[in-house]
Amino acid sequence: MEKPANTNRNISENIKNRWSPRAFDGKPIEEGKLLSILEAGRWAASAFNEQPWRFVVGKKGDEKYEKILASLIEWNRQWAGEAPVLILNLAKRTFTRNGKPNTTALYDLGQAVAGMAIEAVNQELITHQMSGFDMEKAETLLAVSDDFQAVSVMAVGTAGNIKNLSEDMQQMETSTRERKTIEELLF
Amino acid sequence: MEKPANTNRNISENIKNRWSPRAFDGKPIEEGKLLSILEAGRWAASAFNEQPWRFVVGKKGDEKYEKILASLIEWNRQWAGEAPVLILNLAKRTFTRNGKPNTTALYDLGQAVAGMAIEAVNQELITHQMSGFDMEKAETLLAVSDDFQAVSVMAVGTAGNIKNLSEDMQQMETSTRERKTIEELLF
Repeated sequence: MEKPANTNRNISENIKNRWSPRAFDGKPIEEGKLLSILEAGRWAASAFNEQPWRFVVGKKGDEKYEKILASLIEWNRQWAGEAPVLILNLAKRTFTRNGKPNTTALYDLGQAVAGMAIEAVNQELITHQMSGFDMEKAETLLAVSDDFQAVSVMAVGTAGNIKNLSEDMQQMETSTRERKTIEELLF
Repeated sequence: MEKPANTNRNISENIKNRWSPRAFDGKPIEEGKLLSILEAGRWAASAFNEQPWRFVVGKKGDEKYEKILASLIEWNRQWAGEAPVLILNLAKRTFTRNGKPNTTALYDLGQAVAGMAIEAVNQELITHQMSGFDMEKAETLLAVSDDFQAVSVMAVGTAGNIKNLSEDMQQMETSTRERKTIEELLF
């Protein structure tokens, strides 16, 4: 199912067509496509080029995948378990060069993951990011060191049939995408 | 000057060609292009679709521009004053639906601005984000209310001649873009 942004403005197709579906077809994704997605994240901008983004890539069937899945809230676990790849996105809390707190680490991580989500569209894949997971549980299960913070999980895969979702989820999948107007965003 | 990401992987051109130049030609940008950039940010993903991103758009010659410019550190003020547009990026600290702290507000803002930076490439413009500014000064000068946090400033414009930059900046413009390897990013 496609659900392009409802806009008449000229914006790039990959941005226009990115959205967050819940219906995955369960098939594995090509390694090359996964690497292209990570590569897009890799080239994001960051303060002092710290690149505070780190990723735990779980592939369905492996232990990392099971641990990321187990950290999701029940609602997300229902659908995300059909995604072939779950990526746990981590932010490094401090600057490597001086050990000081990096106040834009989450902001920079968001930029990297946004690039990955946009690149996924280019790779004809879908993504769905979640903040609905137990961050501490994920950090513990995956033995994440103290200097890193679990921020989000991104499901990656190929679009599936929404009929395989529960009825309430099916409704969410077909509902209109809503956004504030540009006027509301301008301060 | 172009400085594409040094990669053999198949990634979209707009992501590959985004980088953070300092040489602007000083010419104003078309309003339609600016709106396309904001539109790209508008459609970013966010936790509970809160859309915690807000923007102060300063155009060279107006008061907002002068205030954003005045909040930059000296180093950034040297080159950013040639950009026709300076956007102050703000994050809303709390969820509108329940007033609770939004722990992914910076992450979500980062996603919106990343989309804007990628869209700018599509519009044949350049962008350069800065965390090097006095956040409190920006918030005070622009009367930003307590629920919003100034996180970054993005210069937007058309590429100019690097010969107009100071010598040390010219060197930075032509230096190789460095990133960690994918292996270093995988936890």
